[in-house]
Amino acid sequence: MKRILIIGVGAGDPEYLTIQAVKAIQRADVFFLLDKGEEKDELIRLRQDMIEEYARGPYRVVQARDPDRDRTSPAYATAVRDWRTRRADLYERLILHELGEDQTGAFLVWGDPCLYDSTLAIIEDVAGRGGARFGYEVIPGISSVSALAARHRTTLTQVGRPVRITTGRRLSEAASETAGDVVVMLDAHCAFAGLPDAPDLDISWGAYLGTPDEILVSGRVRDVAEHIHELRTRARERKGWIMDTYLLRRRS
Amino acid sequence: MKRILIIGVGAGDPEYLTIQAVKAIQRADVFFLLDKGEEKDELIRLRQDMIEEYARGPYRVVQARDPDRDRTSPAYATAVRDWRTRRADLYERLILHELGEDQTGAFLVWGDPCLYDSTLAIIEDVAGRGGARFGYEVIPGISSVSALAARHRTTLTQVGRPVRITTGRRLSEAASETAGDVVVMLDAHCAFAGLPDAPDLDISWGAYLGTPDEILVSGRVRDVAEHIHELRTRARERKGWIMDTYLLRRRS
Repeated sequence: MKRILIIGVGAGDPEYLTIQAVKAIQRADVFFLLDKGEEKDELIRLRQDMIEEYARGPYRVVQARDPDRDRTSPAYATAVRDWRTRRADLYERLILHELGEDQTGAFLVWGDPCLYDSTLAIIEDVAGRGGARFGYEVIPGISSVSALAARHRTTLTQVGRPVRITTGRRLSEAASETAGDVVVMLDAHCAFAGLPDAPDLDISWGAYLGTPDEILVSGRVRDVAEHIHELRTRARERKGWIMDTYLLRRRS
Repeated sequence: MKRILIIGVGAGDPEYLTIQAVKAIQRADVFFLLDKGEEKDELIRLRQDMIEEYARGPYRVVQARDPDRDRTSPAYATAVRDWRTRRADLYERLILHELGEDQTGAFLVWGDPCLYDSTLAIIEDVAGRGGARFGYEVIPGISSVSALAARHRTTLTQVGRPVRITTGRRLSEAASETAGDVVVMLDAHCAFAGLPDAPDLDISWGAYLGTPDEILVSGRVRDVAEHIHELRTRARERKGWIMDTYLLRRRS
């Protein structure tokens, strides 16, 4: 029986790898490295470093070009579904043709595979099709949400209170998303800067968390929004990509 | 300068420890093990095992009895604040008297120190008092939320949608907490069983996640609520304690 491991490798710092993830890397015969375009070469490199450091040979690395999502489509969910189907086609081919019977294949996923990552859903789709027969496991990882809180030395939850994890898109669509504590991911447009002026709203922002390029800023949104926007733009230009997230919290 | 490390050790499975956490354990001179009463001896034992496995001597283990929270008080937030003050008194004494100058002390925290854990807030309180002078760091850990999702092989977030992390108390106070996907922690009373009958509401429940005692149940709330309640009661009686969490999601 073929086996697929979806391994969370943590949000940036290679030391966020868990012992379980290291052991999972050691079990893999084939690593599938999906390439999302040139600007993310560095992210491919970082995963290759992890494989080289922890894998016990013999192993193979299979690189493939991950299909692009149509970012021009106004129908977000539809575009994502179409993208997911094309990715499922690719993943199915990889499992069918690049993994021997009784072999174990691994996908290394940044952060936690269960938080805003599509690998698990795609593997489920492929398993549901029935063409490739395999079992699969998920290895949890340190999410950028956990990394953000740890690096800012702040809790995500206040005593007995909830926290919401949402997207930049939703934040810009509904100001009600800022009621209570909220962590925002996948925000390419600094949605916090468009929030209604709220003198009591604090932000704890972080980019490239846990890496040598890490940037942390915290303060009142109205005081630091512009500064974060500038830092983010410059960093993105310099490195070609950015991964950032932030916590919004009202002062009590 | 004294140094305090608040180390997330993950939600149950010792292999959830990150490499960063292992290295932090190796840096510590003194481990503070807070004992919450006899029924949790096993949780003390598990942390001692981690220290024995990873610490590089010489090190000291200081055990202390963590003050009890007044669970009879109807004023939840007040009772928690009072409890926090008494804990801060204790932690301050530990840092003042049990940690030498230039030594590093460590607290091992289950799951992630930033999610429904009070250690960081207490250390902040102690630092704010100014009596004990020290620096402190937070090492993120695999939360029970991440572990739950991984063990159920389900994502916490659906495409572009948010997830809320809340408490059993809040779930029983406001049915609106089940709008959208929600993860519930700290639920001693199976609050899901009291939800209005919702044929489309699914639950993914897990106890003792990542340990040999792990129990996983998933299904429609109306079909499995009673079963989970029974399992939970029996498991708690058998072991003397339980740690569980669950995801609620409406079928689309």
